[in-house]
Amino acid sequence: MGLSDESFHMDPDEFRRHGHAVVDWIADYMERVGELPVTPDVAPGEIAARLPAQAPEEPEDFAAILRDLDEIVLPGITHWQSPGWFAYFPANTSGPSILAELAAAGLGVQGMLWATSPACTEIELRVVDWLVELLGLPRHFTHADGPGGGSIQMSASDATHLVHVVARGRGDVAYCSDQAHASVARGARIAGLEVRKLATTPHAYALDPGVLRRAVLEDLDRGLRPAIVTSAIGTTGTGAVDPIDAIADVAQEHGLWHHVDAAWAGSAMVLAEQRVHQRGVERVDSYTFNPHKWLFTNFDCNVLWWADRAPLLDTLSDTPPYLRNAASDSGAVTDLRDWQVPLGRRFRALKLWWVLRSYGARGLRHHVAEHIALATDLAARVDGHPALAHVAPRSFALVSFRHVDGNAATDALAAAINATGHSQVTASALGDTRFIRVSIGQTHTTAVHVDRLWDTITGATARAAPR
Amino acid sequence: MGLSDESFHMDPDEFRRHGHAVVDWIADYMERVGELPVTPDVAPGEIAARLPAQAPEEPEDFAAILRDLDEIVLPGITHWQSPGWFAYFPANTSGPSILAELAAAGLGVQGMLWATSPACTEIELRVVDWLVELLGLPRHFTHADGPGGGSIQMSASDATHLVHVVARGRGDVAYCSDQAHASVARGARIAGLEVRKLATTPHAYALDPGVLRRAVLEDLDRGLRPAIVTSAIGTTGTGAVDPIDAIADVAQEHGLWHHVDAAWAGSAMVLAEQRVHQRGVERVDSYTFNPHKWLFTNFDCNVLWWADRAPLLDTLSDTPPYLRNAASDSGAVTDLRDWQVPLGRRFRALKLWWVLRSYGARGLRHHVAEHIALATDLAARVDGHPALAHVAPRSFALVSFRHVDGNAATDALAAAINATGHSQVTASALGDTRFIRVSIGQTHTTAVHVDRLWDTITGATARAAPR
Repeated sequence: MGLSDESFHMDPDEFRRHGHAVVDWIADYMERVGELPVTPDVAPGEIAARLPAQAPEEPEDFAAILRDLDEIVLPGITHWQSPGWFAYFPANTSGPSILAELAAAGLGVQGMLWATSPACTEIELRVVDWLVELLGLPRHFTHADGPGGGSIQMSASDATHLVHVVARGRGDVAYCSDQAHASVARGARIAGLEVRKLATTPHAYALDPGVLRRAVLEDLDRGLRPAIVTSAIGTTGTGAVDPIDAIADVAQEHGLWHHVDAAWAGSAMVLAEQRVHQRGVERVDSYTFNPHKWLFTNFDCNVLWWADRAPLLDTLSDTPPYLRNAASDSGAVTDLRDWQVPLGRRFRALKLWWVLRSYGARGLRHHVAEHIALATDLAARVDGHPALAHVAPRSFALVSFRHVDGNAATDALAAAINATGHSQVTASALGDTRFIRVSIGQTHTTAVHVDRLWDTITGATARAAPR
Repeated sequence: MGLSDESFHMDPDEFRRHGHAVVDWIADYMERVGELPVTPDVAPGEIAARLPAQAPEEPEDFAAILRDLDEIVLPGITHWQSPGWFAYFPANTSGPSILAELAAAGLGVQGMLWATSPACTEIELRVVDWLVELLGLPRHFTHADGPGGGSIQMSASDATHLVHVVARGRGDVAYCSDQAHASVARGARIAGLEVRKLATTPHAYALDPGVLRRAVLEDLDRGLRPAIVTSAIGTTGTGAVDPIDAIADVAQEHGLWHHVDAAWAGSAMVLAEQRVHQRGVERVDSYTFNPHKWLFTNFDCNVLWWADRAPLLDTLSDTPPYLRNAASDSGAVTDLRDWQVPLGRRFRALKLWWVLRSYGARGLRHHVAEHIALATDLAARVDGHPALAHVAPRSFALVSFRHVDGNAATDALAAAINATGHSQVTASALGDTRFIRVSIGQTHTTAVHVDRLWDTITGATARAAPR
């Protein structure tokens, strides 16, 4: 062959040694992440400048690579896993999930078809069925009972886009509230649909069935065909909950596809007392939530359920000759490539399985309830503080408030919190009103961290008062 | 709060202990994967039946979870990482890539914006720029020089879909060859475009510029607007290479977007002598390849480059209030959420960075060249075997052949190979002609494994001869 026998591969013994070192590095990171400033102090281009302009010609030692985790990577990390992370929504994680990612990477399977790794498909179908029960969703969402079923997607944005592609057969207009996540309008536009963002109810910021009905009728008058409405359980802005049942009535009247985006708050449905917020879910066409937000499972792990899988499969199934195989031809198996836009898929079900087993249903309920209790407690403190006002009711584990002195004071307060290094919140806006979102959900956030945040808030508002 | 202080989390010490066990399990798996039957012997439903119908109520020990890797998972695994894996295309991997997946999961960052982890974005921009040079692509694909740039997507299917969404502004018809990967027509349809699959040249199965030009003119005559053509460097069927330069002429004549799908064969471009196959690439609008196929990087890791990022950003950028931040507003940073359909993103650049550093450019060239040499050698043996005939020329590391006795003999030969347990090939079809694809590219495939495959082929054809 004219080539040397030289090998550049890491052999199993080296893997074992270096692997232990990486595990130890992460364990150390877990121990110290709470002490690190949540956001890094780097200017644009500063991290890139530490990398050479070209790939190295010669192999580098793993020791050098590992060292650069501390010297190059860590200085540029925003610590989503800090217990002081109150920004955006959480992207929480856990030991079992991280180790499942490792095991999945080591197995290196590509689960596009049942035949290309039966365990990858069958464990996924089983655990998404488990979640149907854990979240109190209707049995027709299960593979076991059907005619629906669920699968793991990369993100709620992907899920919502895919739903809009499938619903496109029904018409050309998509509806959502003006508080819906940006991914709804984006997914609809990418799917080629026109989008109507509907005005929400005052104070609650929820989708108004009457407003939806009028919008649908106006579009019908114009000769357009309404296709789909997306309801949110927990909007990104303030955690608003749209009235699923009432929206389902309008959807039924006009033959609209009804999609539910519970990306964040879906995790709260492990608690039976929260399920009042999804009343009517037995009448929706699709439902999505992200275990990778608030259920201790690494990004990426979104679950998308269909009340009926037929329209999905009609839209996406096609079989080129190189994917034909006896198992698929028999009709006895599910090929998950038909459930998503991409063809290939990682073994993401492994982390969901490990998380559900490691925590048990009881453990998940316990920690989600703990986050909601922390938020409830914080909301009461906001209520009692003269310089602060809620901009919307506390929703699940999200508290949204402003400074009573107005936008400048609100932004100054957010900046003061974020400048502490120990806590990070998101400053956002409702129309022209600036406000602060405190989202509680990092795995290790406890009362200690919320107290520290509160001390910062009271300190900053006290200092600002004389001005 | 009314809740107990009970914790269900795995603490850092437990993580350290269990993490070492998972690393050891993978190292053991690496050592024994070559001895395991490549495909599992399980009936549909058999793996699922080993899982309870409901999620466990109580937490389970990690030891039980780890034991089930052997007892439940492994019996249902198709071993893509076996050195006897010659099926589909490879999804190869390597020690540094697996460990980078672990580190990325441990950091748990979500890199949607520069500000949500500057290192995640800056390392990605730098390594995709490195790859521009490693693959001999034009400098205007780099972030450093522009006006283009690249980013990591989940899969070539996602990349191709996204390109069709962006190209939709130019018209309503998409073109590709009838040998293009199924994801091209699928991505085009999902984007809402009509698709023309064009007849290919005899023997080479390549896109014919004359056929493309006639199809475009016919559509123009019908009042349709041609939008985009996709050329393949290495089709999935037989590894056909479309004439990029000649297709670029037609694209230029008619204002078509020109996308190149080099999902598999892009990795071969690390070798300067292979770049003749991408002649004309400096004139294309977008180019995609999968390091997760043949560049020792775990799925998922696709790279998609744009010759000009403006049409992409015009299509996808929008900024809701909760994503506004000073760095983004300054225009000094790249927010990679604007480069993809999903919003969230894992720190996938870490594995690409670790792979490029661990192998060095020289190591990557060495091992890719080794696979091509093995395929070249196998192709010569097929040439010299009276019972076998190529159905297309050997392409990079893919050899496509049939049994001269026809389809039944070809399928029987494929079945005999796959029944050995040590080697796995894909049986496919070109029109009515069945053939066998031998794709060489698993990380640890060497002459030993190709020889064993060849012994099976010669044995099976010798036994079949008397019939």
